Amino acid sequence: MPEGIAFGGDYNPEQWPLEVQEEDVRLMRQAGVNLVSLGIFAWVLMEPAEGVYEFGWLDTIIDRLHNADISVNLGTPTTVPPAWFARKYPDASPVTREGLRVGAGARETACSSHPAFRAASARLAERLVARYGEHPAVVMWHVHNEYGAPLGECYCESSVSAWRDWLRHRYESLDALNTSWGTAFWGQHYGEWDEIDAPRWSHTVVNPAQRLDYARFANEEHLSHYRLQRDILRQSGKPVTTNFAGTVNCKSMDLWRWAPELDVIANDHYLNGEQPDNHIQLAMSADLSRSLAGGGPWLLMEHSTSAISWQPRGIAKRPGEMRRNSLAHVARGSDSVLFFQWRASRYGAEKWHSAMIPHAGTDSQIWRDVVSLGADVRRLAPVKDGRVTSEVAVVWDWESYWALELEWRPSGDLRFRERVDAFYEALWREHVTVDFVHPSADISGYRLVVVPSSYLLAEGSAKNLQRYVESGGHLLVSYFSGIVDENDTVHAGAYPGALREVLGLSVEEFHPLRELETVTLTGGATGRIWSERVRLERAVAMRHFTDGPDAGHPAVTANAFGGGTASYLAAALGGDDLRALLGEVLDRAGVSRPRDLPDTLELVRRGAFTFLINHGDAPVTVTGMTTGTDLLTGAPFTGEVPAGGVAVVPG
Amino acid sequence: MPEGIAFGGDYNPEQWPLEVQEEDVRLMRQAGVNLVSLGIFAWVLMEPAEGVYEFGWLDTIIDRLHNADISVNLGTPTTVPPAWFARKYPDASPVTREGLRVGAGARETACSSHPAFRAASARLAERLVARYGEHPAVVMWHVHNEYGAPLGECYCESSVSAWRDWLRHRYESLDALNTSWGTAFWGQHYGEWDEIDAPRWSHTVVNPAQRLDYARFANEEHLSHYRLQRDILRQSGKPVTTNFAGTVNCKSMDLWRWAPELDVIANDHYLNGEQPDNHIQLAMSADLSRSLAGGGPWLLMEHSTSAISWQPRGIAKRPGEMRRNSLAHVARGSDSVLFFQWRASRYGAEKWHSAMIPHAGTDSQIWRDVVSLGADVRRLAPVKDGRVTSEVAVVWDWESYWALELEWRPSGDLRFRERVDAFYEALWREHVTVDFVHPSADISGYRLVVVPSSYLLAEGSAKNLQRYVESGGHLLVSYFSGIVDENDTVHAGAYPGALREVLGLSVEEFHPLRELETVTLTGGATGRIWSERVRLERAVAMRHFTDGPDAGHPAVTANAFGGGTASYLAAALGGDDLRALLGEVLDRAGVSRPRDLPDTLELVRRGAFTFLINHGDAPVTVTGMTTGTDLLTGAPFTGEVPAGGVAVVPG
Amino acid sequence: MPEGIAFGGDYNPEQWPLEVQEEDVRLMRQAGVNLVSLGIFAWVLMEPAEGVYEFGWLDTIIDRLHNADISVNLGTPTTVPPAWFARKYPDASPVTREGLRVGAGARETACSSHPAFRAASARLAERLVARYGEHPAVVMWHVHNEYGAPLGECYCESSVSAWRDWLRHRYESLDALNTSWGTAFWGQHYGEWDEIDAPRWSHTVVNPAQRLDYARFANEEHLSHYRLQRDILRQSGKPVTTNFAGTVNCKSMDLWRWAPELDVIANDHYLNGEQPDNHIQLAMSADLSRSLAGGGPWLLMEHSTSAISWQPRGIAKRPGEMRRNSLAHVARGSDSVLFFQWRASRYGAEKWHSAMIPHAGTDSQIWRDVVSLGADVRRLAPVKDGRVTSEVAVVWDWESYWALELEWRPSGDLRFRERVDAFYEALWREHVTVDFVHPSADISGYRLVVVPSSYLLAEGSAKNLQRYVESGGHLLVSYFSGIVDENDTVHAGAYPGALREVLGLSVEEFHPLRELETVTLTGGATGRIWSERVRLERAVAMRHFTDGPDAGHPAVTANAFGGGTASYLAAALGGDDLRALLGEVLDRAGVSRPRDLPDTLELVRRGAFTFLINHGDAPVTVTGMTTGTDLLTGAPFTGEVPAGGVAVVPG
Repeated sequence: MPEGIAFGGDYNPEQWPLEVQEEDVRLMRQAGVNLVSLGIFAWVLMEPAEGVYEFGWLDTIIDRLHNADISVNLGTPTTVPPAWFARKYPDASPVTREGLRVGAGARETACSSHPAFRAASARLAERLVARYGEHPAVVMWHVHNEYGAPLGECYCESSVSAWRDWLRHRYESLDALNTSWGTAFWGQHYGEWDEIDAPRWSHTVVNPAQRLDYARFANEEHLSHYRLQRDILRQSGKPVTTNFAGTVNCKSMDLWRWAPELDVIANDHYLNGEQPDNHIQLAMSADLSRSLAGGGPWLLMEHSTSAISWQPRGIAKRPGEMRRNSLAHVARGSDSVLFFQWRASRYGAEKWHSAMIPHAGTDSQIWRDVVSLGADVRRLAPVKDGRVTSEVAVVWDWESYWALELEWRPSGDLRFRERVDAFYEALWREHVTVDFVHPSADISGYRLVVVPSSYLLAEGSAKNLQRYVESGGHLLVSYFSGIVDENDTVHAGAYPGALREVLGLSVEEFHPLRELETVTLTGGATGRIWSERVRLERAVAMRHFTDGPDAGHPAVTANAFGGGTASYLAAALGGDDLRALLGEVLDRAGVSRPRDLPDTLELVRRGAFTFLINHGDAPVTVTGMTTGTDLLTGAPFTGEVPAGGVAVVPG
Repeated sequence: MPEGIAFGGDYNPEQWPLEVQEEDVRLMRQAGVNLVSLGIFAWVLMEPAEGVYEFGWLDTIIDRLHNADISVNLGTPTTVPPAWFARKYPDASPVTREGLRVGAGARETACSSHPAFRAASARLAERLVARYGEHPAVVMWHVHNEYGAPLGECYCESSVSAWRDWLRHRYESLDALNTSWGTAFWGQHYGEWDEIDAPRWSHTVVNPAQRLDYARFANEEHLSHYRLQRDILRQSGKPVTTNFAGTVNCKSMDLWRWAPELDVIANDHYLNGEQPDNHIQLAMSADLSRSLAGGGPWLLMEHSTSAISWQPRGIAKRPGEMRRNSLAHVARGSDSVLFFQWRASRYGAEKWHSAMIPHAGTDSQIWRDVVSLGADVRRLAPVKDGRVTSEVAVVWDWESYWALELEWRPSGDLRFRERVDAFYEALWREHVTVDFVHPSADISGYRLVVVPSSYLLAEGSAKNLQRYVESGGHLLVSYFSGIVDENDTVHAGAYPGALREVLGLSVEEFHPLRELETVTLTGGATGRIWSERVRLERAVAMRHFTDGPDAGHPAVTANAFGGGTASYLAAALGGDDLRALLGEVLDRAGVSRPRDLPDTLELVRRGAFTFLINHGDAPVTVTGMTTGTDLLTGAPFTGEVPAGGVAVVPG
Repeated sequence: MPEGIAFGGDYNPEQWPLEVQEEDVRLMRQAGVNLVSLGIFAWVLMEPAEGVYEFGWLDTIIDRLHNADISVNLGTPTTVPPAWFARKYPDASPVTREGLRVGAGARETACSSHPAFRAASARLAERLVARYGEHPAVVMWHVHNEYGAPLGECYCESSVSAWRDWLRHRYESLDALNTSWGTAFWGQHYGEWDEIDAPRWSHTVVNPAQRLDYARFANEEHLSHYRLQRDILRQSGKPVTTNFAGTVNCKSMDLWRWAPELDVIANDHYLNGEQPDNHIQLAMSADLSRSLAGGGPWLLMEHSTSAISWQPRGIAKRPGEMRRNSLAHVARGSDSVLFFQWRASRYGAEKWHSAMIPHAGTDSQIWRDVVSLGADVRRLAPVKDGRVTSEVAVVWDWESYWALELEWRPSGDLRFRERVDAFYEALWREHVTVDFVHPSADISGYRLVVVPSSYLLAEGSAKNLQRYVESGGHLLVSYFSGIVDENDTVHAGAYPGALREVLGLSVEEFHPLRELETVTLTGGATGRIWSERVRLERAVAMRHFTDGPDAGHPAVTANAFGGGTASYLAAALGGDDLRALLGEVLDRAGVSRPRDLPDTLELVRRGAFTFLINHGDAPVTVTGMTTGTDLLTGAPFTGEVPAGGVAVVPG
């Protein structure tokens, strides 16, 4: 791997004539590029006809980069099967839940379960490791591209066949499957394995446990396709990764299952261009990447210099925004600043995606900013390998995400991200850096654990949370958590079955609000979406509903349990209301955080350094901080962070 | 059938272990349950493999209920073909109009026209009647479940084959079919029967007469599947029914065709949770149920104790609402208060649907309300078999509903329910109980008949309406009525061809309004959606348009015809405007109704009793009513109905 | 062809009994009808079974018309293949991009590439020309109906096969194709022709160059189907046409490719009923029709007397509106006023479409207006063959339209028609009649050429525009013009590559605005949708942005180039803002136009006459015009055009 922080991006030299390729290397050096990703879309160039391999062109490029001291992250190209593959194996094309065959002209156009696709993938990995496994420029392997985007579940025949195998392995007996899926409902009992189909679109709701398992299966099939290649590539002794399609945005993949299989976590992050304060979601994506990396460094594999082509409007970044974005990722644990893409394509689907070299060329603000950022990145070498530690963890569970968002839930307004985002934003504005955790993880080191609508909570996970509190931890649980087990079966007894004891309360009935309806709490906070009838068992009420279907009943509670406290929030608070409430809980849990800073200043400590990123329009003066040298300026830090600026200071 | 009013609901004991089943019976007795529906989703339990039947489990359950004096409404389970059926007969899965195959994992997953499905259905009915036909607990048969929801039309090969047979029978000759369908338009003439396909989705409009016939055909195929089972079950001498998927909500079935085939009418009613004053739509559903029952008693087969799982938000019922709902159904002729479902499922698609025993168990408001309602229901035994009589009828015709809502009508804002709902609400607020009638029915007994946008009106029906007026009746016709015949062919001459003579006017041209555009009438009423050029022939104008495309021309007319009067309303009035206009018409027709009552008080007379249901937030004092005993309290009626309360008093 | 202006419409006598047909002819004479279109939907009547032809019925009708001096525009009926055809050739039914088969019950239900459909089409044309080629009543041939609506692209097997042939012919070598399509992007290189599929729907974006070529291919296939019939029909020596499905509305057909193949241009025009000032779009459609006709006369083949059945609401025309519409078409070059349809159908899909004889019959305002219009039309015989000349041209290019509206453009708000409509409306309100031109056309005769977001601009076209300015022309270019070449490949160098030299500027980066966001220009004009960073090279700035992402940078520029000037507009101005700016450019270019007339008065000069059409609610007095005879009144023109009225005066 390169020295210091890696800087560079996706590089597709095959799209350009030789003179441009030669200019590329010259400009990479000018910008300080030290790592590029190659080959991701080059299957047809590597294997122009089935079994016919051509690597000369790639040898030349890798050598040229190597001669310029630029390292290579070498991709396996399985995300784009060639036209000859689509023609020869038409049944490898994915099929949608509705039964439509996916056309071959895009990407992710082969089913991960298809035998011919698996065989071809393995052959490619073998050829690549044989040819480049010992090349000094090749420092890392990049398998496939963004598993799960756009291809999550496939409903082709190969998938159904693999699905039955997967079920046999998971359940061993049909009795176990019938019980787990609750096939007694709507008479769905299976008498033979081959009666089980994929949960195809039907004109009304399909068994939710079956759908949940199919989501798991689809995840595992992609993961298995990844492992197949990884195991081959690892023969080289070099690290293997695959780039996540946005940790917080890729719903179809359970990244907790993927993380242990990667030698290094790699994340692609794209701003939601039109969202105000989208740097908060960036921080969330980075924190989740670091959490997947077990708190250690990770790689920002892709982000953009400016506009993103696949959003409704390609909103360009404002002055300084690319720099703030890049450094925020580094602050939160990234050891790289990599872009999609080095040079904007003149043709193809993504020509309107921004790049390090825009269509306007090097006489452009973007190029000047890239060169300047390259210099910044070099100055940040001392933060490399530094760790970020958090006192607060937020539960994030893809299985619960999937389950919560199936059809016919108590309210269609219940969305996993709605609650996670609300809590994350409140914590961000309180300058609290968080880790994300699976509910079964070791959480003993945190002062506070937040559970935002973890609808699905297996009994073991619930017990884990309970033990945490018992041992002195502080838990904050949102409504609609701990409701069903891993098969979407309601935990026995009153809600929230799995958390009733630790919370010291039960919920008698849900009272989803009408569209746009709100409820008020004592103290004045406003809730949307949800109300419910809380019955105190041992907990005490901290707030009550003052109107709506549960007027006079508890809305916020706290329960002393063992050495800790479990708090419960029965309402969908947001913004300042949630922040105020969370402040009380943070104080109770003893979570340290800076006070008196504007909530536009991002403050993150990584290793021996503190990153100060000013997202506001006015300079911010920070008092009581270091007077040491700002890594970015090389000058002593005065305490002032200019509007839109960044400082990285010791301490 | 049970003594008094039936009380209970759908019961799926197969979802629960034995100890819960035993508790169920104990709790049913506590709540006063005297009727449960069994077996509706139990095909795979009754026939776990093709031709292998198992009924021991059902024997046990029926006996247990029988021992507790609880009667059984025994279902045929054809709504959920087992997985083995789907695997063996993949071509029995329905196909959508667009050509997509419906997945097997939901319900209504076999086509009613498929021979194997028909054969299996008959065999099941034979087995059930043989085994339980003489069981004293089994008091009624419940065929299938909610025909038409979600499966209305199917486009599979079996359907197309049955469709051609149906057409041969209907038309006898291709000449007759070509004429009826107007195949001269767009050159659609058929030269052979086998050239006729189902009216599949195309990229522009398909022959509307063909589509209308396909809707009829689909209805008849389901009805034929019902009759097949009914004829077998009737060997037992016990009544046979099937539950309508909401009389007013199930567009795909023509319930006038079904009603004569049922031994007792059964309706499922679910509130639109978010709609204000949704008790008015409840009353409409109940009135239509009674009308289908020929004015006699009917059964409320399903409703909910609280939240409904399949709506966007599962809005819980407010305190007292379940009671008001239940008693309103009884007031309007139901001899039962039955729920979907006895006990909330812990798994499957409908786990968030409310039940008589919620997930919270019996220590819950819902359970206490259920027990209390059971006692109320017992006290209402004297109203059983009582009839409701109406002085006003509203025309409701599914064929017109279908025809009106095909593509390319004069305005997409023309919706059948829009006008029916507007008239019904105005009548409800005027405390007028109405019957619904087919336009060809005997209407001679009504003082007023309302025709709300009966676009399709066969000549015989139009003549029926005309004779009614001639004989002294009062008719109120809305715009866009009597426009086409049973084949969607415009009646010859100026609009409204079929009603021109009785109305004494013609309509020269339609002038649909733009989105959100309104017109004003003399007197100030506001119309939306529609304006048209009325030309008086013998009628007199009662109101004129004062603006819009027909300013200065008649908007409301009246025509003395024979012994009666035919009024016409050319504008889409609503709310108080429509209520005021309707008040005039009611007065002219001599329709009696209480005055000076708030429009939140529902007042219905059934047999020897009057139901007073207060939907408002304040108590209502009724003067001049009985001082007899309120059936619900057992105490003399003081004249006051408390806020949210109900009284049932003699008279 | 008839003397004077043709008057009449589509006539479907096959829908009516003999007595109505006889009345039709009598009424046609009363209204002055001199041309009707026959046979368009009559395939199954002409060929009731494959190879069995029957024309006796048509002989009778044509003779009856001929005896009444009514000419016939005889249609080939290929738009509606008979049911026997659909049954025999099920694979001729079109397939959508998503893979759904189009049902046979509508129209355009055969694929233009299918061999059996082609063969049948040729046979029909041969029979028609043999039987009617010399019939004196038949004055013109009308091939098919509205190619491209609703069937644009088809994805059936016949299409794919024809597509590969088309590509072989276009590119000759796979290397050329791979280069043109940029298959290096996402690894889409083709090694054999048979690997190439149609650009079917996929789960993400398909190669845009491939999609663009498929749009071209689909256009050519329809055109080839037209030519097949035309070449046969031309044996008669009589003119052949096909009616365009609205020149400005039919996106799927490149009418510049069609125009040279037609003996006379024929347009169908339907108002957008709910759009305010929809007479401006009518004018645009007429101007484009005339432009396709090379400035000469054309035929208005269809328009409506009032409501249109296929829009969301069938908005009726206001008093005088049909007359103003009809005469506006004549003013802009039409030598006909023809309607769809003569008599409103009583059945079928289009029964709610208005007609010359409405359902109400002849005692109706529509019929009286039709008769009166017939008289007006007769009085306009002197304008026949007159030409309209324009000093201003607007670039209209279907290929750019297609390319601009593929997925993943810089902003989804960029729409071809949005900009064209904005410029056209401003010019219309300035009383400037415009021609539309292809960017490669000879434009040397115009004072001003406007280029509204011509995203795709081939190098030859760009050079054409540059030469025009060099030679003294004035060019006004909107943002997002000249960006890509004919393969959707970005022109090399900074934007707008193809126009950079003539405009004397470059655009460094695009800055699409957020939804509803606006920017302001010096002088106060407001822009939506777009902002961009303009860098002056030789141009001078006329306006700057005062806020938004490009505050302080140029928004409007002008560049003296050779003998002319090239202006650039970097913002999406509309309404009065655009009109004011355009006024400056018109003045600079020396475009003459009347001043001091209200912008509700349409003024067009055709041949020796000026049409004055008052769309406003108040009379308009025109000074300085002729005092000659108004063709419509036969009286001297006083200078006053009444509210809603029309005058046609010499000069």
